[in-house]
Amino acid sequence: MIKKLTVAALFGALGITAVAIAQDEGPHDGAIKGRQAMFQTYGFNMGILGAMAKGKMDYNADMAAEAAANLNAAANFGQSAMWPEGSDSETPGNAKTRALPAIWSDFPGVLEKSKALKDASAVLAAEAGNGLDALKSAMGGVGDSCKGCHDDYRAEKK
Amino acid sequence: MIKKLTVAALFGALGITAVAIAQDEGPHDGAIKGRQAMFQTYGFNMGILGAMAKGKMDYNADMAAEAAANLNAAANFGQSAMWPEGSDSETPGNAKTRALPAIWSDFPGVLEKSKALKDASAVLAAEAGNGLDALKSAMGGVGDSCKGCHDDYRAEKK
Repeated sequence: MIKKLTVAALFGALGITAVAIAQDEGPHDGAIKGRQAMFQTYGFNMGILGAMAKGKMDYNADMAAEAAANLNAAANFGQSAMWPEGSDSETPGNAKTRALPAIWSDFPGVLEKSKALKDASAVLAAEAGNGLDALKSAMGGVGDSCKGCHDDYRAEKK
Repeated sequence: MIKKLTVAALFGALGITAVAIAQDEGPHDGAIKGRQAMFQTYGFNMGILGAMAKGKMDYNADMAAEAAANLNAAANFGQSAMWPEGSDSETPGNAKTRALPAIWSDFPGVLEKSKALKDASAVLAAEAGNGLDALKSAMGGVGDSCKGCHDDYRAEKK
């Protein structure tokens, strides 16, 4: 049986906070890395679905359904801790980020993009396991929503 | 209105597959990075909850509930694409990973650890918004389940 740990001992054992502090240089680096992990999760699952849609990987209904469910779950993460004011690409001292200041100056616009992703990922989660054609049709909406947000709120790659 | 894109044009526009291929050197690097993004999501949310539990951040019921819900959602990701055989720390050619070969030789043990995390994260998601004491009590179970898996299936940091 695993011995119960106090919270402090627990975090000591896991090294979570210590690692976070040691790696963070800017005040918002934790939040920046947290949202980037979320985006990497989007990308990982979209990568699987895209490979199937493009015929680079055999279509597998279970795997497609799983990737779409994961994407939909991640698209529904609460994000209020991920976007502190000042964690944009133009404020000095932040970890590498392409998040444009427009995210904070046009927050209603961002929420609209976020809703578009959630709506499209819900459709994709419902359709991805129903065959390759269903997957392909439902992917467009997610891709459009990704692109819609990137176009307006993400800096070009340098 | 956003113009509908074909799947190929979409991925071209997003650069998802191209980026994944360019950065991957080993055959399992995509899967390794995919699971690491998931673990980073665990860590980000546990970091927030741990900071509150340790008094380094003021307890905020909404933020605690959100972090615990995110953690619980990530703990329930389907992981079948994340752990291909050979994506361990001892097989040459992989991206940096601490995943021990025991994960594949003792898969029932891993599933048990995974279930322990899901059970504990469900309790945490239900309790985190109910005050600091409720948060602290429910965190132990999640921490124990993290540690339980790390002890048996993750290599020490070099």
